[in-house]
Amino acid sequence: MTSILVLNGPNLNLLGTRQPEVYGTTTLADIESACRDHAKKIGCEVAFLQTNSEGGLVDAIHAAKQVHSGIVINAGAYTHTSIAIMDAVFSTELPTVEVHLSNIHAREEFRHKSYLVRATIGQIAGFGLQSYLLGMDALMAHLNT
Amino acid sequence: MTSILVLNGPNLNLLGTRQPEVYGTTTLADIESACRDHAKKIGCEVAFLQTNSEGGLVDAIHAAKQVHSGIVINAGAYTHTSIAIMDAVFSTELPTVEVHLSNIHAREEFRHKSYLVRATIGQIAGFGLQSYLLGMDALMAHLNT
Amino acid sequence: MTSILVLNGPNLNLLGTRQPEVYGTTTLADIESACRDHAKKIGCEVAFLQTNSEGGLVDAIHAAKQVHSGIVINAGAYTHTSIAIMDAVFSTELPTVEVHLSNIHAREEFRHKSYLVRATIGQIAGFGLQSYLLGMDALMAHLNT
Amino acid sequence: MTSILVLNGPNLNLLGTRQPEVYGTTTLADIESACRDHAKKIGCEVAFLQTNSEGGLVDAIHAAKQVHSGIVINAGAYTHTSIAIMDAVFSTELPTVEVHLSNIHAREEFRHKSYLVRATIGQIAGFGLQSYLLGMDALMAHLNT
Amino acid sequence: MTSILVLNGPNLNLLGTRQPEVYGTTTLADIESACRDHAKKIGCEVAFLQTNSEGGLVDAIHAAKQVHSGIVINAGAYTHTSIAIMDAVFSTELPTVEVHLSNIHAREEFRHKSYLVRATIGQIAGFGLQSYLLGMDALMAHLNT
Amino acid sequence: MTSILVLNGPNLNLLGTRQPEVYGTTTLADIESACRDHAKKIGCEVAFLQTNSEGGLVDAIHAAKQVHSGIVINAGAYTHTSIAIMDAVFSTELPTVEVHLSNIHAREEFRHKSYLVRATIGQIAGFGLQSYLLGMDALMAHLNT
Amino acid sequence: MTSILVLNGPNLNLLGTRQPEVYGTTTLADIESACRDHAKKIGCEVAFLQTNSEGGLVDAIHAAKQVHSGIVINAGAYTHTSIAIMDAVFSTELPTVEVHLSNIHAREEFRHKSYLVRATIGQIAGFGLQSYLLGMDALMAHLNT
Amino acid sequence: MTSILVLNGPNLNLLGTRQPEVYGTTTLADIESACRDHAKKIGCEVAFLQTNSEGGLVDAIHAAKQVHSGIVINAGAYTHTSIAIMDAVFSTELPTVEVHLSNIHAREEFRHKSYLVRATIGQIAGFGLQSYLLGMDALMAHLNT
Amino acid sequence: MTSILVLNGPNLNLLGTRQPEVYGTTTLADIESACRDHAKKIGCEVAFLQTNSEGGLVDAIHAAKQVHSGIVINAGAYTHTSIAIMDAVFSTELPTVEVHLSNIHAREEFRHKSYLVRATIGQIAGFGLQSYLLGMDALMAHLNT
Amino acid sequence: MTSILVLNGPNLNLLGTRQPEVYGTTTLADIESACRDHAKKIGCEVAFLQTNSEGGLVDAIHAAKQVHSGIVINAGAYTHTSIAIMDAVFSTELPTVEVHLSNIHAREEFRHKSYLVRATIGQIAGFGLQSYLLGMDALMAHLNT
Amino acid sequence: MTSILVLNGPNLNLLGTRQPEVYGTTTLADIESACRDHAKKIGCEVAFLQTNSEGGLVDAIHAAKQVHSGIVINAGAYTHTSIAIMDAVFSTELPTVEVHLSNIHAREEFRHKSYLVRATIGQIAGFGLQSYLLGMDALMAHLNT
Amino acid sequence: MTSILVLNGPNLNLLGTRQPEVYGTTTLADIESACRDHAKKIGCEVAFLQTNSEGGLVDAIHAAKQVHSGIVINAGAYTHTSIAIMDAVFSTELPTVEVHLSNIHAREEFRHKSYLVRATIGQIAGFGLQSYLLGMDALMAHLNT
Repeated sequence: MTSILVLNGPNLNLLGTRQPEVYGTTTLADIESACRDHAKKIGCEVAFLQTNSEGGLVDAIHAAKQVHSGIVINAGAYTHTSIAIMDAVFSTELPTVEVHLSNIHAREEFRHKSYLVRATIGQIAGFGLQSYLLGMDALMAHLNT
Repeated sequence: MTSILVLNGPNLNLLGTRQPEVYGTTTLADIESACRDHAKKIGCEVAFLQTNSEGGLVDAIHAAKQVHSGIVINAGAYTHTSIAIMDAVFSTELPTVEVHLSNIHAREEFRHKSYLVRATIGQIAGFGLQSYLLGMDALMAHLNT
Repeated sequence: MTSILVLNGPNLNLLGTRQPEVYGTTTLADIESACRDHAKKIGCEVAFLQTNSEGGLVDAIHAAKQVHSGIVINAGAYTHTSIAIMDAVFSTELPTVEVHLSNIHAREEFRHKSYLVRATIGQIAGFGLQSYLLGMDALMAHLNT
Repeated sequence: MTSILVLNGPNLNLLGTRQPEVYGTTTLADIESACRDHAKKIGCEVAFLQTNSEGGLVDAIHAAKQVHSGIVINAGAYTHTSIAIMDAVFSTELPTVEVHLSNIHAREEFRHKSYLVRATIGQIAGFGLQSYLLGMDALMAHLNT
Repeated sequence: MTSILVLNGPNLNLLGTRQPEVYGTTTLADIESACRDHAKKIGCEVAFLQTNSEGGLVDAIHAAKQVHSGIVINAGAYTHTSIAIMDAVFSTELPTVEVHLSNIHAREEFRHKSYLVRATIGQIAGFGLQSYLLGMDALMAHLNT
Repeated sequence: MTSILVLNGPNLNLLGTRQPEVYGTTTLADIESACRDHAKKIGCEVAFLQTNSEGGLVDAIHAAKQVHSGIVINAGAYTHTSIAIMDAVFSTELPTVEVHLSNIHAREEFRHKSYLVRATIGQIAGFGLQSYLLGMDALMAHLNT
Repeated sequence: MTSILVLNGPNLNLLGTRQPEVYGTTTLADIESACRDHAKKIGCEVAFLQTNSEGGLVDAIHAAKQVHSGIVINAGAYTHTSIAIMDAVFSTELPTVEVHLSNIHAREEFRHKSYLVRATIGQIAGFGLQSYLLGMDALMAHLNT
Repeated sequence: MTSILVLNGPNLNLLGTRQPEVYGTTTLADIESACRDHAKKIGCEVAFLQTNSEGGLVDAIHAAKQVHSGIVINAGAYTHTSIAIMDAVFSTELPTVEVHLSNIHAREEFRHKSYLVRATIGQIAGFGLQSYLLGMDALMAHLNT
Repeated sequence: MTSILVLNGPNLNLLGTRQPEVYGTTTLADIESACRDHAKKIGCEVAFLQTNSEGGLVDAIHAAKQVHSGIVINAGAYTHTSIAIMDAVFSTELPTVEVHLSNIHAREEFRHKSYLVRATIGQIAGFGLQSYLLGMDALMAHLNT
Repeated sequence: MTSILVLNGPNLNLLGTRQPEVYGTTTLADIESACRDHAKKIGCEVAFLQTNSEGGLVDAIHAAKQVHSGIVINAGAYTHTSIAIMDAVFSTELPTVEVHLSNIHAREEFRHKSYLVRATIGQIAGFGLQSYLLGMDALMAHLNT
Repeated sequence: MTSILVLNGPNLNLLGTRQPEVYGTTTLADIESACRDHAKKIGCEVAFLQTNSEGGLVDAIHAAKQVHSGIVINAGAYTHTSIAIMDAVFSTELPTVEVHLSNIHAREEFRHKSYLVRATIGQIAGFGLQSYLLGMDALMAHLNT
Repeated sequence: MTSILVLNGPNLNLLGTRQPEVYGTTTLADIESACRDHAKKIGCEVAFLQTNSEGGLVDAIHAAKQVHSGIVINAGAYTHTSIAIMDAVFSTELPTVEVHLSNIHAREEFRHKSYLVRATIGQIAGFGLQSYLLGMDALMAHLNT
């Protein structure tokens, strides 16, 4: 059975508890729960990992190689600064989809650039929790072709 | 019933007949057909419009205001050069999702920048025909919240 | 009798109906009406044309050559991206004044630059509807010297 | 009665006597005289101050706060280099209109940028002596709304 | 028989009547006439189209696909700003030669850059009416190899 | 009682033992000792943490949320490259003061920029060990208002 | 006895009376009063000078040489544009601390850069009135080593 | 009789023997032979000179002044880096046409810029051996007007 | 006896198993084995450490101080983004040689820049496994002078 | 008799007393004395003025118009930041020579640029006190042709 | 037998006699002698050529084609400015290694960029005379695979 | 006796015969003659060399080392592009003065930058033939201190 790793980067563990008036009250647990439900609907397995460490994300991508069919990744701030994570995706050649909760292209200039996206199938940004579910759909569609 | 306008910009009318060894044999008609099927599945109406004209896209966005609940737009090359289309979306305040067939962030530098995305809910890029269906899903989810 | 063409570019047709809490309730019709009144006061004729098309603005500038003594133009977003419209004004050599409703120099960086202004007598920006009337005055003063 | 301060910056005292074949023979006295006539026509008082000093312009803007209803300012070369003058206008919150004799946007690149304009209602550039009269009109219209 | 489309962009319809002291008195009709004569000499057919619209040029390039063997194009100001026209040439894969009346590389900085040229066989700039005839020769030579 | 976390980033553990002829012989232990003495003087508790890891700093900031009233942080080289640490401070909303031993604005160009400072109350740079004590004072003053 | 000159640049004379809803109601007199109290506490003399003139600040720095042991300077907008003031501090070699009321690094891009800081011991920014007191402490600590 | 100097710069001596799978098997001798044939057809004399030295090209342009009516030049890599060769053409005022075998505007960014073209009538790029023949035609047309 | 630490950064653990058609089948174990053989030949000891963590590399450099005579480091992607690793080398003052498998200066623009190299003796790039052996030679030669 | 104004800008009054180990012990008085001697030798009158104020320099240039035949100016730091002083020289059309004690082109990047030099006959930089005497010679030679 | 050309560019002939306190007393003759010894050790022939001319280096690279198996080149200052030398290496397809005495990446910004390195196997910089010997080793290793 | 080498770079051999309406009728021979006369007046010997080759200038600077006391150099266009000539002056450590006929800082942007000036005592630009004589004076004054 197809297995997807949903990988979350720095500060995403604080979702819901941080500035709820700005980011809403959806927590990372809510996202994982929604992904789990969605996995059942689209017929796949799903695993989760969150880390605040750049090297930790690189390690996780490497480890996914043997275990998962693809990755849905929200690399948070490392999206814009890390060449190492991009190289990790290139190295494993695991089909990967980049997702973002917010519309990064409508925020500060330094959030418009992504190194990671050069190594992924594509990018989905701006749809909140929904970005993850769309990312899973996109990955499944890619794996089925 | 919710009605979505799927708007396509310059050169997308040539899809499938142009460089099939590069872009595949999917035509714009295939995309529209897939969108129509998907619309039935997710319970909405869908209309289509393609134009090679920047002003034509502005006109179409204005006209959509009275008729549609939201827009899924692939503005093609105008994505990167048109402030007028961005302003049109801002002006109508219609919920809009930007989609791209290819992963524009992994192509030439000048295709990384989008004016339009500043006015849309978000952007979905890199999943071929699937980008449109994901865009419809994203728009429906947005309209339902 | 002196005849002035008041030329409006993309999205200006939506004035008043768009984001009234931001842009106020003045419509393009209100602007045209105020210009018409002002024309009487300063003793000239006035004609109006609005189009969302860059080429349409070029066409209109060409056509004005035989008919009008000068142009007051708000080229909207094309101000910042169109070399073609600048060239059109240079080509016809019709005295032209560039006007803007908002203070474009206090908005996003990409709205500070104008190609068009290189071909016009000058620029008036930031005074709302009043910018048009000041533009007519400036044009008349120029024509009378 | 409404009172307007017409403030002139560096080198404007030399108008008319400098390079008359380029700048014409209009002197600063001519401008002040025309402004005085125009003030009568539009029903306001007008005062004048010229200084070649950046700090002098800051001082003059501060002093205007208690005495005048608004400012028409041609800050000359300081337009492009002075953040202090911009801050002075922000600090006093006096309605201010930026004017220029020449079309600064059609001259050297370094004359296109204005710090000052971020703090003013708007900018009028390119109409010679007329720029001042249009600036007075724009300011009066602003004060009357 | 080989058929060449000579495509002209914005403001080129005004040739000869605009600033004759600058651009000379050669009209677009003169250019077309010279191209027609040259076509006879080199043994090909030639058709003409001029439009001030960016989308119009895209449409014309698409339409040329079925009818012509190649294109000689002077895209005027759109040369420097339009990614859509470049994409149109890439999409149709019609052999295309970019021509310019003036030496664009010796004019304003913003006229040095061409998006279009990335999709064409090459560029010929600076030889006035002659640029078109050289463009036809270059295209014929290309088609014959 | 108010509790301050003094957080130190990469390479600061080597202070005093590295290039003593350049950086002096003050060690990180000396800094912590001085902070401890100063804490007694100004009536607060103080805790310390040093790590060479970017993710480790993010983790430490998160963990501080429940335990400390504010943070005095010297993020070392991560000051200039890490968006993740800035986001961490934004996420926890803990009052934070950025400090630097050296005057970073008088060193290499790439040390002038700080992402972190966008999320902090302010920055104190250039006063050696004293920067930490001033940072504690600044934080206390902030907490008392 | 150690004597400190507290030097204030353009627009700081308006503190408290300008945009109180933004900048609070602290006046320059309040700052001077707080500095005077603080001077007593830390055992030094303090003098004050405010001017809106760049040359005036240069003059004041020169004059301080014979009279004061060091300078705490808030050069306001000249911080970002004046090389002359930086050179003045370099020339006198008086120990100087740069202070700012607001966190200039979190404001507009053009306020991030400081020429002056290259000549000072360090910079303290973002702590309101407190920045001055911290600046005095930093200067005293520097003078005592 | 009109005499044209065909001037070739660095590395063009290796044509045909270098990377034939990339550049084809046309040698510099083939180009010169084709130019000689073409010269007969269009009724002019032609001379050739190739050098790998920047100063050598400057010398050759100077020497051409007394001997030739104009120059067709492919300055190779010096096109992009040499101001001296541009100055040489300006100095001699000999009508000159810049040619390139490849479409330099579709290659690496640093090959898009030409100093030389500022001093020439125009530029012809992208047509292989044919670029030289077109260059000769363009020069002859220029000399005949 | 001289002891060299061979330090490898992110993704280098995947060598040989990743894209073997691109990077060849040499594994990190092969590199370490070759270094071990080479160490015997040149008469030194050699130790190895690989980590995907930026902070981990900083820690390893610090730890090397007491144990090794110098470092041969391939910092992978952190070469281009990490100021912390550069500072670590500066802090320990251990003689260090930067090596790269590929010719980073002939790849993407963002791989041309190295912060790390400012702190090392020099850089060797482009010779595959051989770069490490050359790096060991260079380090030994440096230690012997 | 020809009269030259030697104009000195900010911080030059401190010459000799500031950092004598760096700038030497030559004072402004020494420079003036040397200029006076040199004036006798070359047969002209010489006057001196030093001010730390940008506006003061503008005023001095204006005032020189009626009194002096030309200006030798060392505008110090204002050289690099002042458009107003450049405009002052343009306005008076007084022959002016820009001089600098140090070789500004071999110092910090921001000292390489001069606005002022656009309005002067030329620039002499790097020869200490001698720069002034050479400037006087250059001015005299200019006035005599 | 394998033959290596060691090619040296501008100013390298002065080694040892120039600024010996900076560059040491190693002369070019010493380098050549060390290379000759090293050639014997690694079993190859070695030839030498030094020229201060850019075109001379291009000529030498061309001439090497028939005679040598590969090149070790220190192009000196032309490394950073010459596209012609890069093209020469591309044209001959001779295996080439770029070497530098100093660590160019730790010197002035303009010495960080190399055009040449795009055409070479790799680059070795920073190891003095040793860089040449390492370059010979790297070339031999490359030729043997 | 002091001996000065006056070194002239590319295109300066054409002086007087090129565009006399622009550059005047002064020839290089006139300059040399004036330098010879001036040498007698100031008591030194003078030699001349002109070459259009960058390497030739490097060679000439090297050769001057043994023969001349200093150099007055007008490197023409190589001023702006050659790092090699700058390095040559650094290598020989011969006192050198950079001169220019025209005011290069008031011409095209690319003529404002000089690499060479970093290695010279200073620069004299804008005084025509006089620049050389001033350069000789400056050099003599330097040699006499």
